[in-house]
Amino acid sequence: MDRVISVVGHAAIDLLFDVENIAIHNESQPIIDYHEYYGGGAANIAIGIARLGGNCQLISAVGGDFAASGYEAELENHGVDLSLLYRFKSEKSTRAFVFTDREHHQSTYFDWGASKHLQELEPPAVDFVHLATSDSTYNAGIAKKAGFVSFDPGQDLVTYSKENLESILENTNMLFTNKHEIQRVCDMTGKCFEDILAMIETVIVTYDAEGSIIHNGGEAISIPVVTVKALDPTGAGDAYRAGFLLAYIRNYPIEICGKIGSTVASFAVQSIGCQTDLPTWDVMKARYEQNFGKFPESI
Amino acid sequence: MDRVISVVGHAAIDLLFDVENIAIHNESQPIIDYHEYYGGGAANIAIGIARLGGNCQLISAVGGDFAASGYEAELENHGVDLSLLYRFKSEKSTRAFVFTDREHHQSTYFDWGASKHLQELEPPAVDFVHLATSDSTYNAGIAKKAGFVSFDPGQDLVTYSKENLESILENTNMLFTNKHEIQRVCDMTGKCFEDILAMIETVIVTYDAEGSIIHNGGEAISIPVVTVKALDPTGAGDAYRAGFLLAYIRNYPIEICGKIGSTVASFAVQSIGCQTDLPTWDVMKARYEQNFGKFPESI
Repeated sequence: MDRVISVVGHAAIDLLFDVENIAIHNESQPIIDYHEYYGGGAANIAIGIARLGGNCQLISAVGGDFAASGYEAELENHGVDLSLLYRFKSEKSTRAFVFTDREHHQSTYFDWGASKHLQELEPPAVDFVHLATSDSTYNAGIAKKAGFVSFDPGQDLVTYSKENLESILENTNMLFTNKHEIQRVCDMTGKCFEDILAMIETVIVTYDAEGSIIHNGGEAISIPVVTVKALDPTGAGDAYRAGFLLAYIRNYPIEICGKIGSTVASFAVQSIGCQTDLPTWDVMKARYEQNFGKFPESI
Repeated sequence: MDRVISVVGHAAIDLLFDVENIAIHNESQPIIDYHEYYGGGAANIAIGIARLGGNCQLISAVGGDFAASGYEAELENHGVDLSLLYRFKSEKSTRAFVFTDREHHQSTYFDWGASKHLQELEPPAVDFVHLATSDSTYNAGIAKKAGFVSFDPGQDLVTYSKENLESILENTNMLFTNKHEIQRVCDMTGKCFEDILAMIETVIVTYDAEGSIIHNGGEAISIPVVTVKALDPTGAGDAYRAGFLLAYIRNYPIEICGKIGSTVASFAVQSIGCQTDLPTWDVMKARYEQNFGKFPESI
């Protein structure tokens, strides 16, 4: 039985719209089509891990509309442990409204809903935690108590106080960022990249289509993307994290963790939505072998 | 018993958002709060008339989600006749997503949903019809067959072909426009305002806070707004039309129709949403008398 990975952050309901044009001030624009998808970084990762057969738990704040939306049942059906879900009956669930025009410009509106209460809550002590975008005070609190901390501040970095960011980094064993975010982490803390590498055992920096680099124990390991016919890049980062974290907890070498992450991400980009078409462990393994050769024996 | 007013156009479900800023290209903006409201010009007018005690019918195309949304029951509870509603089970209902920032800039996305099928349908023959924003081909078809035509092209004027616009105007007994739209009607048809007045018995032009002018039988009658503490201007125009049309069908003199319209509009602006706080006939009468003096005997 795998160790439980506790994933902290949003379970959001996303409405994704195709529009002719982004509506600017005092404009009205027609919608071509739109659909509802289940999303939120933490929930995407939790479902990704569960789909691969891992043992995971979602720590998230949801509104009174969450059960009726069908999302709760979806998570349960995937086997995600919801025993630490915070349910705020009189609040709305976290939602994003994302408008994409014909030139792929996006305009997003985001409602934190129930998640705004996370900052008031006393976090539980958990064993292995992955902190996705979430309230920075809650993340700082849970990082202090956890046995192992994987940290992914993502686009919410702008909402972190210097104190919360420094406190989390002190407790972080593994950091996920993209090339812009790592620069911002340095700027906010007054540290250079080498200082961060000296503090944190494993730092993974993603470079979109150029893949990722894993900085681990003085080494920098380049991981290529697994190329597929991409339909929608949303969710690729979350899928990468799901594969990486489960491989890591299953004690695969760090380079293999990256390659497994990269393989899982390739499934996320080939269909619309963040949680569609995610692979089981065996399906992932087959594509891994097509791209990276023989899948290593588990350790 | 009043004659039936058949109102043609949208029954839309509106999501109205308060946001910090309008999200332009590749921006993400937080939502302060948002709520769902029942709207759509035709449905607003139908509910306004029904609330005043009039006899009205909504001719609209709705999706499979319409009954579950609660909107169908809301219309039925108000006594609106839905026997000519077109139900497209596999389509979505018409929806608008309206984002308003702190400086009252608005950005709107609009999905026609089921309404896009109106153009394929053969309209029924009805007695007294009010054409709100809707498909121009359907509006042209129903105008040809109706006994009396009230026409309000509204913001959809840009979607009208010259042929459809001219065909409807030939059959129109009463035209509602704002000051911008009347200019566009002239531009599109190559007619001057006097030509329009010569064609159509009653032309009502609205001027926002400056009230409206009714052009009727060579006269121009100025109707002031009824001033209240305004919270939300949305729906004022529809409420004005509801009051005007019911008064007209009840044979009040045209100036009284305008004053009744103006009184009903004052209720719409004092609360958020287009269908909230609409008055009954007696409640409307009381405010009418406070503003315009004794309410005339019915004729």
